[in-house]
Amino acid sequence: MILGQGNVATHLWSAFHKVKTIELFQVNSRAFSAIPVSDVTIIAVTDDAIEEISQQLGSRKGLIVHTSGTVSMQAIHQQRKGVFYPLQSFTKGSSVNFSTVPFCLETRHERDFFTLQSLAKLVGSKTYRLNSDQRQKMHIAAVFVNNFTNHMYAIGKDICDVHEIPFEILHPLIAETAKKITNISPKEAQTGPAKRNDEETIKTHLEHLNSQQEELYTLVTKAIQNKQ
Amino acid sequence: MILGQGNVATHLWSAFHKVKTIELFQVNSRAFSAIPVSDVTIIAVTDDAIEEISQQLGSRKGLIVHTSGTVSMQAIHQQRKGVFYPLQSFTKGSSVNFSTVPFCLETRHERDFFTLQSLAKLVGSKTYRLNSDQRQKMHIAAVFVNNFTNHMYAIGKDICDVHEIPFEILHPLIAETAKKITNISPKEAQTGPAKRNDEETIKTHLEHLNSQQEELYTLVTKAIQNKQ
Repeated sequence: MILGQGNVATHLWSAFHKVKTIELFQVNSRAFSAIPVSDVTIIAVTDDAIEEISQQLGSRKGLIVHTSGTVSMQAIHQQRKGVFYPLQSFTKGSSVNFSTVPFCLETRHERDFFTLQSLAKLVGSKTYRLNSDQRQKMHIAAVFVNNFTNHMYAIGKDICDVHEIPFEILHPLIAETAKKITNISPKEAQTGPAKRNDEETIKTHLEHLNSQQEELYTLVTKAIQNKQ
Repeated sequence: MILGQGNVATHLWSAFHKVKTIELFQVNSRAFSAIPVSDVTIIAVTDDAIEEISQQLGSRKGLIVHTSGTVSMQAIHQQRKGVFYPLQSFTKGSSVNFSTVPFCLETRHERDFFTLQSLAKLVGSKTYRLNSDQRQKMHIAAVFVNNFTNHMYAIGKDICDVHEIPFEILHPLIAETAKKITNISPKEAQTGPAKRNDEETIKTHLEHLNSQQEELYTLVTKAIQNKQ
């Protein structure tokens, strides 16, 4: 049973739908007065709504889980509770290959953990056991490697646009940078003027940036230098 | 003719060596008193050494180019000069697939441009025409999308390590983030608490960071918010 109709709910639905051994219901979370009982109920709604939905489910039987990276497992009020969090940024419209999506799992009871593990494996996903605290910390790490990294790309594109340089020249470098850290640690992979303490290049670069870019360049450069 | 024995020189050598139509010489840049004349001389040495090497080459015939992203074409003193800059971070020991490496080309004379273009195409590379100013600006953009992005990965790993979370959980997200901007612009791809102006999540995240991470989180968040 999947409650919700957002991106996560829709993508999970599509994935589970292909698995013949799962009997599946999807329910619009705003109108589930008479939802059928099922082994696992997945509350795939916005973070704010999870607790309220759980309360509305009352003394529902079976395992009740949410799919949020940030909300504690304690937001679920039922006795058999858990978290079934797929770590990926889902985009509406584009299909998801779940075999590349890791699931972070947490349950109150050990046997329920194996149920979630089996569910994830049915769609080909790797699973990891993380408690609510770890999941929240990982979400912060994800902000750095996803949201903030994307902003670095945005600045790169801004600089290219101003100087009429096709941003696509940088695509292979971006791909290589992302691939490299799957083989060696980011610390070992670090290169560039900050890492080399190449003050002359750093000074030249700063002269060509706008004030916001300059502030960021200075701070990240300092951070890289402090890390050595 | 390739002068130099660093990473770029070695990788270029390996690539050109496979092309039967190129007759190739590689020379240790510290001992080239009697180097043979060739159509194209590629000075693939450290940035600081380019001008000196060019001067030592005297009135050498043929096209003389360097391979630096930051040094101006004017560092070459010969009349027929150019730049043959492969945009990729080369690592010692790991082989390079040049078909994914874009070359940024610049020459003083138009016919020499086509020579460099042909050379790059022989190893399967895409080419772009950039002048020295554009190349230097693109190098700054590369610092953001490569060096600074890598530092975002490093912080992500630090957070994971402290909380005993396997960093590999984030690998698929990192790959997806890098891939996304080849289809849509980084600005369109931006997600996360900063983009959503989700002040509550931002506040919670800041409480869990060390002072340097906090400073960076605040600045990048502000930058993303200003960009909307």
